[in-house]
Amino acid sequence: MSLLIVGSVALDDIETTHGKAERILGGAASFASIAAAHFTPPQLLGIVGDDFPLEHIELFKARGVDTQALEIKPGKTFYWAGRYHADFMHRDTLLTELGVFENWSPTIPEALRGASYILLGNIHPELQLHVLEQMPSARFVACDTMNLWIKTARRALNQVIERTDLLLINDEEARMLSGEVALPLAARAIQAQGPRVVIIKRGEHGASVHTPDGVFYVPAYPVEAIVDPTGAGDTFAGALMGYLASRDSVEFSDLCQGVVQGAVLASFAVETFSLEGLVAAQPKEVEQRAQMLARMVRW
Amino acid sequence: MSLLIVGSVALDDIETTHGKAERILGGAASFASIAAAHFTPPQLLGIVGDDFPLEHIELFKARGVDTQALEIKPGKTFYWAGRYHADFMHRDTLLTELGVFENWSPTIPEALRGASYILLGNIHPELQLHVLEQMPSARFVACDTMNLWIKTARRALNQVIERTDLLLINDEEARMLSGEVALPLAARAIQAQGPRVVIIKRGEHGASVHTPDGVFYVPAYPVEAIVDPTGAGDTFAGALMGYLASRDSVEFSDLCQGVVQGAVLASFAVETFSLEGLVAAQPKEVEQRAQMLARMVRW
Repeated sequence: MSLLIVGSVALDDIETTHGKAERILGGAASFASIAAAHFTPPQLLGIVGDDFPLEHIELFKARGVDTQALEIKPGKTFYWAGRYHADFMHRDTLLTELGVFENWSPTIPEALRGASYILLGNIHPELQLHVLEQMPSARFVACDTMNLWIKTARRALNQVIERTDLLLINDEEARMLSGEVALPLAARAIQAQGPRVVIIKRGEHGASVHTPDGVFYVPAYPVEAIVDPTGAGDTFAGALMGYLASRDSVEFSDLCQGVVQGAVLASFAVETFSLEGLVAAQPKEVEQRAQMLARMVRW
Repeated sequence: MSLLIVGSVALDDIETTHGKAERILGGAASFASIAAAHFTPPQLLGIVGDDFPLEHIELFKARGVDTQALEIKPGKTFYWAGRYHADFMHRDTLLTELGVFENWSPTIPEALRGASYILLGNIHPELQLHVLEQMPSARFVACDTMNLWIKTARRALNQVIERTDLLLINDEEARMLSGEVALPLAARAIQAQGPRVVIIKRGEHGASVHTPDGVFYVPAYPVEAIVDPTGAGDTFAGALMGYLASRDSVEFSDLCQGVVQGAVLASFAVETFSLEGLVAAQPKEVEQRAQMLARMVRW
């Protein structure tokens, strides 16, 4: 079934202990779309400026990403410059220029309004709501969010969460959103707000999936040489939703398989700057890493 | 095969968001011994003052812990008072009185020198070395340590690590000890210093076991109502070593089973103050939680 992915498409300057890369393709929707395309051709809803290199659009197309809803507007593409600390867990934002993203109010082309699966990337909750309002027939809505919106746009975020089937959130944000310290309780409190499924992202420790049918835990694939952690969470979300849409099922077993695929593709994403690792990952390598993860938790 | 457990036996005052408990039985060797005793009767090497309630010694005995090497000396028992923050991850030490522990230099009774399995609880590395020197026939040495010794007793700690088969360490300490950021690399760097097996404890995210035969990951059992996290790591280590000694085997599959038992018993330990939860845990409940953990990672 068709999958719509909404979010930022950006150009990034990124510095990590492994080096520096400038004006590289980034943005949550970029990572999520390329990840999802490993399983099903997604539709990408986003906006870029007229400075956006056409080669990136060609890349999306070559990977099967439908770009008819990727607006190109006169002006500058969303630009983010950041520097990661040596621990890869903390980072400093050096510069953010919203460019054409600033006043974006996406209108979804008629042809895409029938998508059954939606991934609302981590953008302002008002934008997420605006998208949802245009998609009354959506069957399964996944939403990513962050601490910034919990702090500054709680009311709109709550409205999004009420209409969300699957919320992706990291451990600290889950505590912040729920007021609970223990993550199993935090997940349950968030479920009570609407989402049937809550996925708590635990960075290098993996992720847990909380559903009414049980809890599932996937470790992170043990990447030894992290080059750039940007986009790991978006890749995880995109792969998961791509997998679910390709199966057209959101049963517990599908969710489990989906997060394993997410964990695996995220491991490829962090091994390079930008989307190179994610693009280069071959089905056989993806399968090998999924098997390695399965062995890591077999006893 | 016989298992010797060395470490602190203490009286604690502990305050958490769930309440306050005073002069309760604590100490790494107490938790580890009672946990190990779920699988095999361990020998406890430690020291207490003459203020130590006899009921605690009776508890050890009733659980099958051999206390002939638990010295009782005139003076005060090791005493620790601490207060946990609401996140259960940070804590403030309010008071530490070493008491009779301060000048302890354990002499191991002849009858116990034949133990094949040793768990060196988290005490000063010089003391750990002193124990090892008296146990030349030990076949499998596990060692727990902490940031304090990495910072202040590095040389002695390195000597212990060289003679250790299994090092237990938390994620931040693994980074500190190895100088590596990525935990898989940190584990490998530590393995190069001696230990065939490195177990990285990840708190609420579980633990990973790094061996030449592969990596294994066990999630934490999803405890909803943590009352007091004191002793979780010691319980984990004690259960693991008790399991290995009971099997008299340290194959990869034994290590996997052992850490699952460790994760399960640790979940009982944190549900109460002191050792109550650990003592009360019935074999059937332990088995149920182990099965729950297995389901959590099955896909």
